[in-house]
Amino acid sequence: MTSLRLLYLGPPGTFTEVAAGRAPGASGAERVPVASVDAALNGVREGEADLAVVPIENSVEGGVTSTLDALGAGRPLSIRAEVLVPVSFVLAVRPGTALVDVRRVGSHPHALAQCRGWLARQLPRAVTVPALSTAASAQVLAGASGDAPYDAALCAEPAALAAGLEVLERDVADNAGAVTRFVVVGRPAAPPPPTGSDKTTVVASLAQDRSGALLELLEQFATRGINLTRIESRPQGTELGRYTFSIDCEGHVADPRVSEALMGLHRVCPQVRYLGSYPRADGLAPVPPAGTADRDFTAAREWLTQLLDSGEASA
Amino acid sequence: MTSLRLLYLGPPGTFTEVAAGRAPGASGAERVPVASVDAALNGVREGEADLAVVPIENSVEGGVTSTLDALGAGRPLSIRAEVLVPVSFVLAVRPGTALVDVRRVGSHPHALAQCRGWLARQLPRAVTVPALSTAASAQVLAGASGDAPYDAALCAEPAALAAGLEVLERDVADNAGAVTRFVVVGRPAAPPPPTGSDKTTVVASLAQDRSGALLELLEQFATRGINLTRIESRPQGTELGRYTFSIDCEGHVADPRVSEALMGLHRVCPQVRYLGSYPRADGLAPVPPAGTADRDFTAAREWLTQLLDSGEASA
Amino acid sequence: MTSLRLLYLGPPGTFTEVAAGRAPGASGAERVPVASVDAALNGVREGEADLAVVPIENSVEGGVTSTLDALGAGRPLSIRAEVLVPVSFVLAVRPGTALVDVRRVGSHPHALAQCRGWLARQLPRAVTVPALSTAASAQVLAGASGDAPYDAALCAEPAALAAGLEVLERDVADNAGAVTRFVVVGRPAAPPPPTGSDKTTVVASLAQDRSGALLELLEQFATRGINLTRIESRPQGTELGRYTFSIDCEGHVADPRVSEALMGLHRVCPQVRYLGSYPRADGLAPVPPAGTADRDFTAAREWLTQLLDSGEASA
Amino acid sequence: MTSLRLLYLGPPGTFTEVAAGRAPGASGAERVPVASVDAALNGVREGEADLAVVPIENSVEGGVTSTLDALGAGRPLSIRAEVLVPVSFVLAVRPGTALVDVRRVGSHPHALAQCRGWLARQLPRAVTVPALSTAASAQVLAGASGDAPYDAALCAEPAALAAGLEVLERDVADNAGAVTRFVVVGRPAAPPPPTGSDKTTVVASLAQDRSGALLELLEQFATRGINLTRIESRPQGTELGRYTFSIDCEGHVADPRVSEALMGLHRVCPQVRYLGSYPRADGLAPVPPAGTADRDFTAAREWLTQLLDSGEASA
Repeated sequence: MTSLRLLYLGPPGTFTEVAAGRAPGASGAERVPVASVDAALNGVREGEADLAVVPIENSVEGGVTSTLDALGAGRPLSIRAEVLVPVSFVLAVRPGTALVDVRRVGSHPHALAQCRGWLARQLPRAVTVPALSTAASAQVLAGASGDAPYDAALCAEPAALAAGLEVLERDVADNAGAVTRFVVVGRPAAPPPPTGSDKTTVVASLAQDRSGALLELLEQFATRGINLTRIESRPQGTELGRYTFSIDCEGHVADPRVSEALMGLHRVCPQVRYLGSYPRADGLAPVPPAGTADRDFTAAREWLTQLLDSGEASA
Repeated sequence: MTSLRLLYLGPPGTFTEVAAGRAPGASGAERVPVASVDAALNGVREGEADLAVVPIENSVEGGVTSTLDALGAGRPLSIRAEVLVPVSFVLAVRPGTALVDVRRVGSHPHALAQCRGWLARQLPRAVTVPALSTAASAQVLAGASGDAPYDAALCAEPAALAAGLEVLERDVADNAGAVTRFVVVGRPAAPPPPTGSDKTTVVASLAQDRSGALLELLEQFATRGINLTRIESRPQGTELGRYTFSIDCEGHVADPRVSEALMGLHRVCPQVRYLGSYPRADGLAPVPPAGTADRDFTAAREWLTQLLDSGEASA
Repeated sequence: MTSLRLLYLGPPGTFTEVAAGRAPGASGAERVPVASVDAALNGVREGEADLAVVPIENSVEGGVTSTLDALGAGRPLSIRAEVLVPVSFVLAVRPGTALVDVRRVGSHPHALAQCRGWLARQLPRAVTVPALSTAASAQVLAGASGDAPYDAALCAEPAALAAGLEVLERDVADNAGAVTRFVVVGRPAAPPPPTGSDKTTVVASLAQDRSGALLELLEQFATRGINLTRIESRPQGTELGRYTFSIDCEGHVADPRVSEALMGLHRVCPQVRYLGSYPRADGLAPVPPAGTADRDFTAAREWLTQLLDSGEASA
Repeated sequence: MTSLRLLYLGPPGTFTEVAAGRAPGASGAERVPVASVDAALNGVREGEADLAVVPIENSVEGGVTSTLDALGAGRPLSIRAEVLVPVSFVLAVRPGTALVDVRRVGSHPHALAQCRGWLARQLPRAVTVPALSTAASAQVLAGASGDAPYDAALCAEPAALAAGLEVLERDVADNAGAVTRFVVVGRPAAPPPPTGSDKTTVVASLAQDRSGALLELLEQFATRGINLTRIESRPQGTELGRYTFSIDCEGHVADPRVSEALMGLHRVCPQVRYLGSYPRADGLAPVPPAGTADRDFTAAREWLTQLLDSGEASA
């Protein structure tokens, strides 16, 4: 019996590994760290693995924009699930270093940014030094001899422990409720059945020569009462001022209100890439405004069918 | 073999009788004048006749608002066709009356209004006297002895001739291109097949407690690129400030863009009454904006079907 | 000392005369009935009178569309006030006629329509006969000898009494809360100061060659959170399908939110005619949505002024 | 005489230094490299320098999101000008290395991404290695002895030459027209006069509890016919799904159409930060749709002023 193979944005010890360990439907999977979001997604595209886990929103590791770009281009992929992981850093040092000795703090720039207030209060004289990832800052610090580029690393606790570092402080963060969102990605497949608490992800480009094109895109959702839970612009890369939009909306492609909105996008946008419908990690169910519940769409279609048959309809 | 029976807003000699004579699909019908729009429509509702011909837009006979109100309430009816009739009045007098003798001109107030400029130029000293219809003004003038309430009648030429009056002036009108639009109404039936040049008529009420409700109604058409050829508000009669809207839009209920707009109306309006899809008298075909042609709706649905099946879709 | 001279749509005994008697700021005016809305408004235009009182909404006398058309064209006029009059008909007969004797009921067609249900219940066998006004129906009935065209008239009580008729039934109406709205019209003048409970009336035409023009018009109000209390389409008279819109909105032209909306109309509509800002008869004050109160407009302008001065602004 | 002091995102040899050398109004300035966008902007905030030059759009150096975040928070700053710099990389090596020897290529991840196609064609077997900046990759390569982490660096030509490297290939890029946009930032000041070809930059947050808030934001621009040349979402950092929007629009804060849109933003958004109006580097002038030119706004205001004075207005 062969088990699932799952790639995640490494190195081990990052929050992405935590997310990989919690991915729905992948509990027994072989988990393999790779060096980049591109490597993780291409591994799935090429059949070297079944699933990839990559950060998509508010990450401390900087993988977000590369995730959006990599999902939006190349061979199609499909988001199967999302995982939310609370962000909680530790301040890690080589054994023997005390807080008063810390003059330089290394980490990924996003992690340093998220702890800027804490550092200003607790280590007002320390300077920050950028590293390629939070886990890398731990490894570099552990591996360096006397000439380490920094005295402490801001990283996830598993990375600190794996590197043999000592944890000086826990729960280092300016915003106690910070969360990173990850997605579990596979090759395209029919979406799972709606659960009543779903999200749908699409990438849409705008017609270049039409003012108001973004407005038109958003109206496809607004006129069906569909909330967006995320909208991010990404430059198309060809010239300044041209964007695609990466969007998460509430609901499932099989819900009438969502399917009609997606068909509307297909009509008004030059390109639309559907990236999947999947259960929400927070379990929230949408509360559609009057006239936009699925039952309203169903009733409207029944009414139309009666009209086409007989020229009149009840109600 | 029984022939069709068609009721029209009388009396004979009005523009409505002209329209009744040109009603598509009713060339051999028995044509019966009735006293009111209500009588014509109720006669069809109750099976006393097969069809009714009533003015619906820009009429000189004043039947328009009563037509809108009568179609919008009561048992459902179905518009089968429309007929356009150019409006052309004559100034009719009793034999022997000269233009210089005309001191008082009688007609329906709408006809008087449409000839206001002509009267001011040609008969600057004449006063106008309201009558119940243009044809009635001819009959009253013909039937009166010395005490006629007016010296000339503004009416359609057949009415003048039928009453034994003499025509002093033809083509009396301020606006040479004036046209009245009539509809041919039957009991509800499946709509005729689309011709590519069709109109659809609906009546929709607005949710009372939502600001922007009219905007929301119009967006159902605008987001599908559908032009409205007529929109008229009618008071609901229950209190000031409450309206229903009588709307003609381009296209046929079986066209995907129109069917989706109608389903949208059904969702956002408390009440929608479909009054029929029928060929346009002017033969014009819609020119939908980018992304709103029927083929765009069809392509979008095919794309969605692929997504639901396999999670990905070409294009 | 000269008093005000006020023209109203006659004859005496109609609901318009009742409204004229209650017109704000005209308590001592000389009140003169005239034969048509046009006559009333033109009398003011030409300086023969100071004010006119005409029905504008939901009238039983049929003056509404002619009022809208007459205000929307010709030399400018200005609405100074509005008056609401409850609609309450009586069934009037010649002395000696009993209810069981009533076979024919005469009145203006709108009055007959408003009492259709009552007539069907109380006088199921009676036919209705159209007359030129409710007051005229009383006068005709009173003046006729044995050959009266109807046995009873539906009219306002004063008209019945003035004609010497007897009142058989009071409060004849299908809708107990029916109200007619009248406006008091003068020559253009600077608007009265805002009261906090005002209305503004405008007439706007649509650009002929732009789809979505009505949507654009409505957005000028919607984006400032302004409710419309009346919107009515009127054919422009030049060809089918071309309309102007007569609109009452909440607020006063001197309110920032309203002034900005009117400037928006001026930009997007080929023609806009301002017809006045005046106190609401119902005393209701608007409840603007978040961000559209006058104080929000004022704060936004102060913020802008700071930016223009210094490149930054508080809040 | 004291000259201007200008900070730019270093190290020397990056495209940002090129932009700093072309900054309008800063030709004689002392140019000082700093380690981060934050350091550059804070130096200006604290008066240590007069101007900062930082990348804002489509940069290869990765400074974009940190620029957006740093401009959007903290003490206000003001954009004075923009500079466009074509992106053109060289492939630089230590003297003696031939193209066939290149197995590993180092650079900032964004530069590697922009040359992905070129690398796949010219160096199909080479792996890519991330560095902290393009200039840093040159310095690291030049400074390393036998154990360099890569055999070639992708960087700007000045950086290669300054590090003593040899240029193997010029014009390395997948997209020949790639451009990076930089802004010149100072402390807040009254904006320069409009030139007819200007841009305005703002940051706006969305009301958290209102669906359709982004639509409402965009309508402030769309209803005034204002094109957006850039719109980017930035997470607010407090919780998933909350965004601010960084926006460049055509026009100048002193243009009536822009000033009205900004006031609209101020009304509907919880927070708006104005970041300046400045000449466009491309010299393009807007072509406003019908009804949204500055003269239309001016005419509308004159019309309103007449109404407020006299109750009527010409046109």
